[in-house]
Amino acid sequence: MKFKLLLDLFDEKSNDFLSGEEISNRLSISRAAVWKQINQLRELGYEFEAVSRKGYRLLYKPDQYEHKDLMQNINTAVFGSRLHLLESTSSTQIEAIKLAEEGAEAGTLVISDMQTNGRGRLGRNWFSPAGKGIWMSLVLRPELPVRFMPQLTLLTGVAVCSAIRKVTGVEAGLKWPNDILVNGRKVCGILLEAATEDNKVRYCIAGIGIDVNLSELDYPEDLRSIATSLKIESGTSVSRSRLIGEVMNQLEARYLQYENEGFAPILKEWEALSASIGKQVRSVTLNQVIEGTAIGLSDSGGLMVLTEEGKNSTIFSGEVEIIQ
Amino acid sequence: MKFKLLLDLFDEKSNDFLSGEEISNRLSISRAAVWKQINQLRELGYEFEAVSRKGYRLLYKPDQYEHKDLMQNINTAVFGSRLHLLESTSSTQIEAIKLAEEGAEAGTLVISDMQTNGRGRLGRNWFSPAGKGIWMSLVLRPELPVRFMPQLTLLTGVAVCSAIRKVTGVEAGLKWPNDILVNGRKVCGILLEAATEDNKVRYCIAGIGIDVNLSELDYPEDLRSIATSLKIESGTSVSRSRLIGEVMNQLEARYLQYENEGFAPILKEWEALSASIGKQVRSVTLNQVIEGTAIGLSDSGGLMVLTEEGKNSTIFSGEVEIIQ
Repeated sequence: MKFKLLLDLFDEKSNDFLSGEEISNRLSISRAAVWKQINQLRELGYEFEAVSRKGYRLLYKPDQYEHKDLMQNINTAVFGSRLHLLESTSSTQIEAIKLAEEGAEAGTLVISDMQTNGRGRLGRNWFSPAGKGIWMSLVLRPELPVRFMPQLTLLTGVAVCSAIRKVTGVEAGLKWPNDILVNGRKVCGILLEAATEDNKVRYCIAGIGIDVNLSELDYPEDLRSIATSLKIESGTSVSRSRLIGEVMNQLEARYLQYENEGFAPILKEWEALSASIGKQVRSVTLNQVIEGTAIGLSDSGGLMVLTEEGKNSTIFSGEVEIIQ
Repeated sequence: MKFKLLLDLFDEKSNDFLSGEEISNRLSISRAAVWKQINQLRELGYEFEAVSRKGYRLLYKPDQYEHKDLMQNINTAVFGSRLHLLESTSSTQIEAIKLAEEGAEAGTLVISDMQTNGRGRLGRNWFSPAGKGIWMSLVLRPELPVRFMPQLTLLTGVAVCSAIRKVTGVEAGLKWPNDILVNGRKVCGILLEAATEDNKVRYCIAGIGIDVNLSELDYPEDLRSIATSLKIESGTSVSRSRLIGEVMNQLEARYLQYENEGFAPILKEWEALSASIGKQVRSVTLNQVIEGTAIGLSDSGGLMVLTEEGKNSTIFSGEVEIIQ
């Protein structure tokens, strides 16, 4: 790795300051080059305290992905069995779409340490800084008509939510259709994109973004009140590789269950993990506003709402706000 | 154009033979270079008769695409208003998907003179030689839930079939869901691929392949009994640019009608242009075989079949064979 010599110096000092001059002398590089390397490491998720006359102190070393480590954590037959591990990419969705178009097998998993243009739902951006989150996209090739895709989205939510609970103990809950919340703030987003031919799915990409080890200060101002991380909620760092492994395990198990038993058991599990059901919700679309109490999922995966006038409505797309 | 000097010599001779020696002298190139250029022109759709001691005679000059010519034939507001005109590509579908992912607007049209790996339905290849067919892909961005995609496929078939009839007078008919036949042989294939997010369409690519000016001998053996061209059926060459223009005009008109009036008028028109209805058909899927008389389209665009036992079945996907 490019920064190995510099990081070895910090390791030597453990929690002590290391002056720019000492680094410059020992690595035989200019002071400007030292400053440049420190800033590049900051972009990769390292945190330094800089004090004039004392130098730099390493405060936080991001959890690095290791191929071997990931493979040891992923105990599946297919899901995640082929890894594409990237340092940076515009979006893991776009990488996975490219691979799928080139014929990549089901279970191919693209993981990037950071994304420069991470893709969220409805054309939104997904904040994806280096070293602190899981930004990944899984290629699936389900033999399903397109109309079942919303069920696959819910299934993915169930698997990821279960994995988060199991690995971290954090009480994560599902917000319809595919966000995972902790104490009302978003900790994970799920985006299922498919390529279809007529009404058949050619392939589907399950994009999963999990805010793992971000601190409050890592978030831009506008996200602080609505986003949170597993580290903030649990008070401790979480191994990204272990969580990725558990997500793949849970996802493969649910997928096989879905193939064998259909949607009913997934639906029950979704409801049990739900942060929406029993809450007042509001859905605004071009044509209508639906407001009422979320009472459960319909057989096809829509959110059933009981309005104040006692009418049952089912929401099939778009966004649902939890009011209280 | 690279071959201008050579083609000018043939123009001079009109229908007469031009010897390799004369070409070699007048263009100051070697005999081997003459032979190479002739072969390259053959790959672009030119046809030459070669007779020893006499030389070469130009038999057929393919209809070349001209940007200006295309623009004059396309009289639409949106469809085909942005052209990407290529000499060769692996597949216009793949080009259009790339453009759509990069944000290309609805109506962007990719046309290629030939495809090296043209994409057909169900992962099949589409034979796409140079100079003689229309191989094109149109980017659409319909505000539609995914379940309406099969209707859009049928709409595209209606528009292309109408355009073929109008420009050539050939009695083309629709085979469910999206082939166009003349006298039982395929003259056009339509492939609608969509990229979806949950149950919404992000974009859709309408791929249209029309065998325009191919001769019987242009087809590989295995296609001769099942494929035909407009030239074979009408006995005369057809301007590709004029036909593309008419397809865009018809498609945009139907699309606007669909937005305003829904599927009902398209359904009626499809049935009127159908080569399937009234025929004995057979559909074989993993789970079942449906055989019977095709009697019409369902409201959502499936093919309704009356079986011998007097049962009504509707076919929603896969392939339907016309038995008689």
